[in-house]
This record gives sequence, structure tokens and C-alpha cells, in this order.
Amino acid sequence: MVWSGVLDKYGSYLPLASAARIITLNEGNTPLVESNRLAEFVAPGAGLKLYFKYEGLNPTGSFKDRGMTAAITQAVFEGANTVICASTGNTAASAAAYAARSGLRCLVLVPEGKIALGKLAASLAYGAEVISIDGSFDDGLKMVREIVKRKPIALVNSVNPWRIEGQKTGAFEICDQLGGVAPDWHCLPVGNAGNITAYWMGYQQYEQGLPRLLGAQASGAAPIVSGKVVTSPETVATAIRIGNPARWREAVQALDDSGGTITAVTDEEILNAWRLLAKMEGLFVEPASASGLAALMKLVNDGEVDPTGKRIVIVLTGHGLKDPGIAVREAAEPLKLPADINALEAYLE
Amino acid sequence: MVWSGVLDKYGSYLPLASAARIITLNEGNTPLVESNRLAEFVAPGAGLKLYFKYEGLNPTGSFKDRGMTAAITQAVFEGANTVICASTGNTAASAAAYAARSGLRCLVLVPEGKIALGKLAASLAYGAEVISIDGSFDDGLKMVREIVKRKPIALVNSVNPWRIEGQKTGAFEICDQLGGVAPDWHCLPVGNAGNITAYWMGYQQYEQGLPRLLGAQASGAAPIVSGKVVTSPETVATAIRIGNPARWREAVQALDDSGGTITAVTDEEILNAWRLLAKMEGLFVEPASASGLAALMKLVNDGEVDPTGKRIVIVLTGHGLKDPGIAVREAAEPLKLPADINALEAYLE
Repeated sequence: MVWSGVLDKYGSYLPLASAARIITLNEGNTPLVESNRLAEFVAPGAGLKLYFKYEGLNPTGSFKDRGMTAAITQAVFEGANTVICASTGNTAASAAAYAARSGLRCLVLVPEGKIALGKLAASLAYGAEVISIDGSFDDGLKMVREIVKRKPIALVNSVNPWRIEGQKTGAFEICDQLGGVAPDWHCLPVGNAGNITAYWMGYQQYEQGLPRLLGAQASGAAPIVSGKVVTSPETVATAIRIGNPARWREAVQALDDSGGTITAVTDEEILNAWRLLAKMEGLFVEPASASGLAALMKLVNDGEVDPTGKRIVIVLTGHGLKDPGIAVREAAEPLKLPADINALEAYLE
Repeated sequence: MVWSGVLDKYGSYLPLASAARIITLNEGNTPLVESNRLAEFVAPGAGLKLYFKYEGLNPTGSFKDRGMTAAITQAVFEGANTVICASTGNTAASAAAYAARSGLRCLVLVPEGKIALGKLAASLAYGAEVISIDGSFDDGLKMVREIVKRKPIALVNSVNPWRIEGQKTGAFEICDQLGGVAPDWHCLPVGNAGNITAYWMGYQQYEQGLPRLLGAQASGAAPIVSGKVVTSPETVATAIRIGNPARWREAVQALDDSGGTITAVTDEEILNAWRLLAKMEGLFVEPASASGLAALMKLVNDGEVDPTGKRIVIVLTGHGLKDPGIAVREAAEPLKLPADINALEAYLE
């Protein structure tokens, strides 16, 4: 079958109008990469089957494209000319791309100095009007929720239900890729909590079993774990640097209903997991994406998750190329050599 | 069918030993995105069917992964412990990732100060030993070809025939995605000329028709177009900043056999095509990837390519996130606003 995007494949599971013209970049169909080395490292001898859903291989480099195809398709269907969102960067890039493809004007609000280089670069390249505000993501979200009451602009943050409708296709794909069954555990980062809400909706609707959900927050931005709003969230994982998640209630419900749990991991734990993914599996991700592995390692270590014989899926939400600065900062400097074969030979000896 | 990489899917077309354990990151299966707006812009009223093969959605963000899975699989099969390559950046990142996945030591030689940020960052993250040389890609290639004669190290540049064997699967996929037929024209950037060599091999072997090949070189790095080695190649399209292609002869043969052509495009034409891809189609690519579109636009304009009723595929070789600096340099600065709804409303009026 030729892949033409998540709405072409799974549209019958969404309440789309049949007259809607699908706006797609052939998103979805991302690899479910089986662990080659980390499963044994995380849980030696446990027979753990560990999989990585590599959502960074969506068109704009993050999981956001699944929901954005639905949100922009619906916005065009309803006659919108302009779309807007607040973003830590991934939503901005995705909205900008799908708006460009359909000829819509796109405005994105980002927290000043707090979005990763790749995300800013992409949003600018796609031609969005990037507005840097002297406030947090949460401040930006308040602003865009208000402005759409005053102006005829479509809001494409994940408070837009079409975003969740499109996003839930990730759960369908995982079940299909596992041969018609849900995993035992599903681990993912939790920022604004749209993704965890969508996955839970998807697993329920697809009826191929239900995983327990393991949510990961960064310890400097862990409102759901601590049970209170974080006014100045801070973490290296900028994609989940959110202090007051819009889908907080839904996330808690999904965690409870699934018999799952949510935990906070430190920036150090996140960066350690980030290094392990790249160096042991060849999977380069943005820091937030490593929080799922960090959380799993923590709970396996604490005995809260029993990995024995389990099938566990970790969602890698965004590509490492989104945040090249982290790699340059965390890694060793390149070695410099003259363009001389003898210098190279000497280095090798 | 669950996708498990190009060797799983197309292995029967390659001379792999049956005992070889496949090293894969589930590369390939990249979208063939149909043009929504550019086809009509490039050739108004011509009924052109224009497609983009979005190879930037491979695991390391470029087309190189198709060949690297084969080269690393073979290197492991032959008992290698260390691999090496010279690179403008994409080969380095790909070699580093597949080496990490299989536990091999990886050395990459890159021209100092001349590789895009995303490529350097990724290679470092995957744990490769990145060696910056005070010379060009061509100098680096000479060095690695020599060192593997002196040391037991596997060379994974595209002079390694396994790279071409894996890379040719791109042609198979395009035919499959077009419903069992090759396009009329196949446009792609030409740097070291491994990719054009591989695609032509693939189309011939798959026997679903043969496209005419349209090669694109940057005018500051156009040895095949000009018929002479370029000693100091220079272009914004760093991925094809190569003055003495290793597969020069094969590229010329493929161009001739296909009834195709090769042309040079200026950096200005490349950046214009780069903007059009992002702003009209939502496809963010590295500059070299835009050279195929730039070349097509030039030759359609000159009357050398007749687009009427044709099916034309342009290979987008690498993701825009590979080179975020270009976008930041070429685009408008983000606008700054206070985190205040009235400021946003005033901006909109």
C-alpha cells in the first residue's frame, strides 16, 4: 500500500466531514525500532522486548504532525485564512508547515530565548510569523486562547480537539506494528498533556488491548507529579517546559484508568538517557524525548515497573536535529588534524 | 506489512550473504509527497505531476541511511571492529548511527568549518570520533582510502560497493509508490555521485521502466558539468561541495544511458528553490536538496525539459534541520512582543 498520511489510513476512526480535503505531508508511518542493545542494559536477563516509536521521523521532525494534519484539514474545511498557536517549538514548526502547504497565514507565539534552534529555524523557513514573547509557554497559550475569541483565527494548539483526533493514530500504528496488540507499557514525555490524552483515546478506540501508561515529566517542570502549577518551569527538555498543562485533568484520568503512573526525572537523568539512545541504539532525539526512557529506567530500578517478559514501547517524540546545541554542548570537541595521512595514522596508533 | 528497513524489504535484490545479521534503523519507506502548489507554479497548465521523495525522513535525516545499513551489515559480517569515512556531514552522521547501533568504533573526517551544524551535532551525539581536517572533502576521501590499506578498518564511503547496493533501493521504492512504474524524469543533486549511480542501477535492475536523469550541481562545485576537477569547491549547498567526485565516470554513463542531462545552478537559484519548497509545500530541506528543483525550474524555463503531462520525481536528499543556520540567516528575525493580549491584538490590526 502507498502511504498517504494518517487521515488517508485511519480517517474512518475520526469524525471528519467526507467533503473535507485532506491537507497532508504523508505524516505517520514512523518506524517502531526494536532495541538492539538497551533492553538488556535496562533489565538484564528479564527478556524485555523494548521498542522505540521514532516520531522524530515525521515530516517536521516531531509527533505533532499527526494532529496537525487533522487540525489544518478542519481549519481549511471551515474556511479559515489564518491559524495561530503558542508553542515550545514543535507545534510551531508543524503548524507552519501544514499552513504553508495549504496557503494559510500562520502566527506562532514562542517563549523568548527558550526554544531550540532547529524549531525556530524551521518555523521561519516555512514562512510563519514567529512572535517571541517575554513570557512562558503557558502565558502564550493564554494569549492565543483569548485572541481567537476576538478575531476570526483558528487555534491549532492541542486544546483544539482535532489535534487529539489526529494524534491518536499513533496508538493505532503501534498496535498494527506489534501485530495487532497493544504493548504492556507505553512510556512518553508529558508536557501540555495532549499526547498522553490522545494515545489513551486511541488505544481505547482501537480495541486491541490497553497498555499501562508511564508518563515522564522533568523535575523542574512537573506540575502533574507534584499536583501544583509550576510558575517558572525550567528544564533542558524544552519541549516539556510547561507549568500548567492544558490537558492536566485528562492526563490524570488516563493514568488512573490505565493503572499507570507518572514520575519526574532530573535533567541529569534525561541527558543520561539521551546519551544512551544515541550511543547504544543510534537513535538521536531531542532531550524531552529521552525522558520516557529515563522514567522507565528509574521505575525499573525502583521495582515499580516489572520488565520481565514485557513488551514496552517508548515514544521518541522529536528528532535530535531539533536541538543541535545540546549535542555540541554535551559532546567532546571534534579533534583537529592536518589533512595528512601520516597524522591520521599516528592518531590511530 | 510491518516495515523493518530496506534490506528486509528488498534484500533479495542485493548479493548479501544469507548468514549476515542485518543492522537496521528501519530506514527507507520515506514519503513520496505529491506537489500541492509547486507543480502549477513550475509549469502552469502543463498537467505536470510532480513528486518529492522526502529522504530527509530517514533515521539520521538523509538518504545516506539506505546505503549505510548495507555497508555496516557487511562490515559486521566480515568481522570489522572499526569503520571510517570522509564526509561533508551526512555520511558521517549515518555511519556514526549505524556503528553505534552495532557497537563498532567509528571515525569520521570532515572538512574544518564546512559542515552544517546538525550534521556535526548528530555525529558527536552518536559517539563517533569526529576528526576535523584542514582540507576539503576530496582531501579527506584520499586519506581514508589510503588508511584502510594500512590498517584493518572498513571504509564506508560510497566507493564501498555496498553503499551503492543499499542506496539503489530508493529507485525500487519510487517505482512501488508510483504504482509499478518509473517516473519520466528523476531529478537529484550530484556531489560525490554515489546517489545518481545507485538510482540508475536500481531502475535498471527493477525493470519497471527507466527515467531520464536530471543531475544538479552547484555552480561553485560543478566538476561534471564543466568537465574538470574543481580544486576549491564553494557553495551554500555544503552536502555537494565536492570538486572531484569518486563516481564521476559512473555518473556520466548513467546520464548518457538515460538520455538525461546535468546542469549547474547558482547558490541564488538553490536558495530560491529552498524557499519555495518550504513556503509553498511545507517541505523543509537542506540547501543541497533544493538543487534538484532549481535545476528542473531552470531547464523547464530554457525549454530543455518538456513537463507536459509528465511524471517527475525530485529527490529531497536531506532534512532542513540538518542546516538550521541557513534558515536563521535567510529568514526574517522573529518579531518581539510583550506577553500581553492587547499587544498581540494591536499587531494583528
